[in-house]
Amino acid sequence: MSATPLRFSRVVGALPSIVPFVPPEAFEREMGAALRLRIGANESNFGPSPKAVAAMSAASAHANWYCDPEGHVLREALARRHDCRRDNIALGAGADALLGLTVRSFIDVGEPVVMSTGGYATFAFHVNGFGGKLVTVPYRGDRNDPMALAAAARKCSARLVYLANPDNPSGSWLDAATQLKLLADLPKGCILVLDEAYADFTRPGILPECDPEDTRLIRVRTFSKAHGMAGARIGYAIAPAEVVRAFDKIRDHFGVNRVAQEGALASLGDPGFIADVVRQVEAGRQDYERIARDLGLVPLPSMTNFVAIDCGSNARAKAVLTRLRERERVFIRMPGLPPLDRCIRVSVGTPPERALFAEALRRVLADLPAA
Amino acid sequence: MSATPLRFSRVVGALPSIVPFVPPEAFEREMGAALRLRIGANESNFGPSPKAVAAMSAASAHANWYCDPEGHVLREALARRHDCRRDNIALGAGADALLGLTVRSFIDVGEPVVMSTGGYATFAFHVNGFGGKLVTVPYRGDRNDPMALAAAARKCSARLVYLANPDNPSGSWLDAATQLKLLADLPKGCILVLDEAYADFTRPGILPECDPEDTRLIRVRTFSKAHGMAGARIGYAIAPAEVVRAFDKIRDHFGVNRVAQEGALASLGDPGFIADVVRQVEAGRQDYERIARDLGLVPLPSMTNFVAIDCGSNARAKAVLTRLRERERVFIRMPGLPPLDRCIRVSVGTPPERALFAEALRRVLADLPAA
Repeated sequence: MSATPLRFSRVVGALPSIVPFVPPEAFEREMGAALRLRIGANESNFGPSPKAVAAMSAASAHANWYCDPEGHVLREALARRHDCRRDNIALGAGADALLGLTVRSFIDVGEPVVMSTGGYATFAFHVNGFGGKLVTVPYRGDRNDPMALAAAARKCSARLVYLANPDNPSGSWLDAATQLKLLADLPKGCILVLDEAYADFTRPGILPECDPEDTRLIRVRTFSKAHGMAGARIGYAIAPAEVVRAFDKIRDHFGVNRVAQEGALASLGDPGFIADVVRQVEAGRQDYERIARDLGLVPLPSMTNFVAIDCGSNARAKAVLTRLRERERVFIRMPGLPPLDRCIRVSVGTPPERALFAEALRRVLADLPAA
Repeated sequence: MSATPLRFSRVVGALPSIVPFVPPEAFEREMGAALRLRIGANESNFGPSPKAVAAMSAASAHANWYCDPEGHVLREALARRHDCRRDNIALGAGADALLGLTVRSFIDVGEPVVMSTGGYATFAFHVNGFGGKLVTVPYRGDRNDPMALAAAARKCSARLVYLANPDNPSGSWLDAATQLKLLADLPKGCILVLDEAYADFTRPGILPECDPEDTRLIRVRTFSKAHGMAGARIGYAIAPAEVVRAFDKIRDHFGVNRVAQEGALASLGDPGFIADVVRQVEAGRQDYERIARDLGLVPLPSMTNFVAIDCGSNARAKAVLTRLRERERVFIRMPGLPPLDRCIRVSVGTPPERALFAEALRRVLADLPAA
């Protein structure tokens, strides 16, 4: 064995060791027991479409073949759906991979990127991971603050501004007009990275209509939420063809697995299933809002598949989260930074799961000192 | 629509648009017909283990759940198999992802990386993609030249040296002692990236025994070859724990999909299937060697699941490849650079596939001018 010390690249060597998300499996290992309820990662407990499951099962038998690295058929289907050209669609192993490709494609070491303080942790992870400089702007009224984001971008000459809409972890949303205003307010050459992971759950008027060739905008979508395929790893970007070609210069060409591509295609072919999931999720949000209010907590408005519930203080939210896990074996998560860190964040489960959550939350709160 | 020109990062902006590999699907689209034979990408036409297929099918129904980002169970199984600690195992979405993480973790822009001229194109793609400086060393006698690789590494103070063993695209191999000598000959602080994608096909004495904590070595393995799971995207590195922790700082934590993790675990539990694939592949190589010689061509010795067949010249190899595709709808590949670009490269198929290949090759050669 050699004792030569390892010398990492400058960027990687300077990064701290952090764990972006502790998974439910790690808690199960720690507790030595299975969770009763897994409603922390905004997964869809309504599952993938049966058509997607059948397609993925069938594809498993052909998993010896590499995927089509051009993702031709799926990109055609997505282009039809979004009324754009196939050249405007980039596939990725989940939205996370596309966020990474975006940062890598546009950010040189030290260049500024603007997002909300406490916004989606994985985007921040990628900005740090490629040596970008994160500039963050506080939420305002528990929502992304588009005027402050634009002002910060102008002030630091940001290359990228990240906006999740609807937002994670707040569940809040901006309407289409507000987003177009933000786009217009960005400094020249700045790109809005619009993470629309929760797009399927929105009402009309929330998703802006934009030219896919608009060089100020990259939209990111995923099959992880309404389509219930988080574990399959597949998402896509809608972007100018020149951006898609830039991704082609650096992406893992065979990285979007065959099973996920087949599953995604089948899922696109089952709009009735997705519409039903969206209806069930809306009913579930209403359940959570009622459950929270019944227990004296305040639910934040949400247009996603989760609800942030205000517990009154960070200490109380932490206590609720920890006790739910340790005493009730219920896995939820919570935002990490103010002002949202007074909330717990609960993903919409099935009706029996919501009933189980309500009981568990009631017991935990009964045992906590009043706020 | 804004006409603001896009401004990419320095590294990405300077990269050429290249297509590392044209997939068989693209040829099918171009021809408007299905291929009769797909033996070009070193996929395993023996398929995944039935146990792996069953596990992947079952996992498809739970694809709504993110994977365990720690890959705990699979890494435990791999650590047992390789007699190391779980901390020495890093999972990735195929060996390609791990090669990318390796380059990104160690190479600053402009730093030198040594590999063989015409070696595995995806490694070169990652070196270029992260702004490294590729220094290449010619094959010698159609094999990697370890003394020349070490000499080049010392001369340019390389941070990484890449060696595929057994090698792709030649099929050749170095024995364990030769690799240990190469390791000893590297300059201080240089890391050998040992790509062992074809490890399962080797005879004893080829895979070196090394301390997983040896800071001069990162080994990369895959489930894409003998395990027949190329389309599932799963591979792993055996490396010092400090390297695995560095990967954790930058990798897509949820990027190794759940279906692949379950499939890989099941495949590890079916050693009889893998042993049978290895036996069949050996028989297939012997078939190809006989087929080639019968037709007056020279097969290169191989310890992989493919055989490079010397066609006498680059022009003749190209003609054979093109005619096989266009006239026979048989998909193979060939090395892109001298000296190996006088060869075609044919992946071992099933016995009926080999018979079909023999007929197709015979027809194509009968129609070509003599060498």
